Amino acid sequence: KKDKDLSFSNRGKTLEDELNETNIYYLNHQKAIIHKKPVPVQIVKVEYPSRSAAVIREAYFRTPSTTDYNGVWNGYYIDFEAKETESKTSFPLKNIHQHQVTHMKQVTNQKGIAFMIVRFSSLERYFVVPFNIINEAWTLMEQGGRKSIPLKIFETKTYEITPGYNPRIDYLSVITNLIANEES
Amino acid sequence: KKDKDLSFSNRGKTLEDELNETNIYYLNHQKAIIHKKPVPVQIVKVEYPSRSAAVIREAYFRTPSTTDYNGVWNGYYIDFEAKETESKTSFPLKNIHQHQVTHMKQVTNQKGIAFMIVRFSSLERYFVVPFNIINEAWTLMEQGGRKSIPLKIFETKTYEITPGYNPRIDYLSVITNLIANEES
Ligand SMILES: [Mg+2]
Ligand SMILES: [Mg+2]
Repeated sequence: KKDKDLSFSNRGKTLEDELNETNIYYLNHQKAIIHKKPVPVQIVKVEYPSRSAAVIREAYFRTPSTTDYNGVWNGYYIDFEAKETESKTSFPLKNIHQHQVTHMKQVTNQKGIAFMIVRFSSLERYFVVPFNIINEAWTLMEQGGRKSIPLKIFETKTYEITPGYNPRIDYLSVITNLIANEES
Repeated sequence: KKDKDLSFSNRGKTLEDELNETNIYYLNHQKAIIHKKPVPVQIVKVEYPSRSAAVIREAYFRTPSTTDYNGVWNGYYIDFEAKETESKTSFPLKNIHQHQVTHMKQVTNQKGIAFMIVRFSSLERYFVVPFNIINEAWTLMEQGGRKSIPLKIFETKTYEITPGYNPRIDYLSVITNLIANEES
């Protein structure tokens, strides 16, 4: 790993940690209201100790029916899923789940703005991927095509986010371009 | 309770049960993509029995930072909270929490459509309450005013939903009016 200005490295944070910081920045600056959805759980047993908070003692993870992030920005419905890969050359489609593709397709049909944020972690590169690009790759894969999206596609067909400072990953900065291109 | 055509009674369902059915209808008919957010929990301990699903053994309820429902409809960001009361005369403001008011205000500032759906359960009457009405009542209460919203206000200043059939509580049918009035 080459030496670099440490103030711009992500210092071992997950992509979700970084996006959480970005969303807090947007909230505090009244720029957008975007939150990560809680992990859905099915609660079976709760205990109520006296003079203490309730404790969930048995619960199970449920499969979500949506993507992880949504909210509103300047009247637009914003909806996305965050994914990362250690690969330096392509993004494996097995990281995406059918219910996420289905949800993004439904959102797009309702004129919401759906996309993925993909981090190539070992390259420290971040891309906003419009849903139509995901859909093309997913459909090709279902038809027996390749099971990953090469980095070249990200470089030529998606919107790269240049990491900055406060917020480090300012994804809305490229969404303006995405929306302009989709409206034309 | 007067005799009535049972096919139009809610048969003891909670408001959330009814809205869940409505949202499933909207999804299946590709009319809107609106989901209830999962209850946020902080997970502390998970067990992984062999050949079985993971079991959460210790978790705590977190206070949400948003309302319970959001999604997209025809390009609009839709966001609401569902509340019910057994009162026949007014809606107690203690049923609403500051974080919900704050969230709806932030959504409104970002040009999203924020409202509450209130069910007067013993009257079987349902109202879509625009955020500005909630905000007025909340602000008055903070200044020492009354701690509830009288039924008369619902009847004169909000949008009543007539229970129907499939879906029984078609809240989007009045949102069109709400949006038209807010855009004028
Ligand atoms: Mg995810
Ligand atoms: Mg609620």
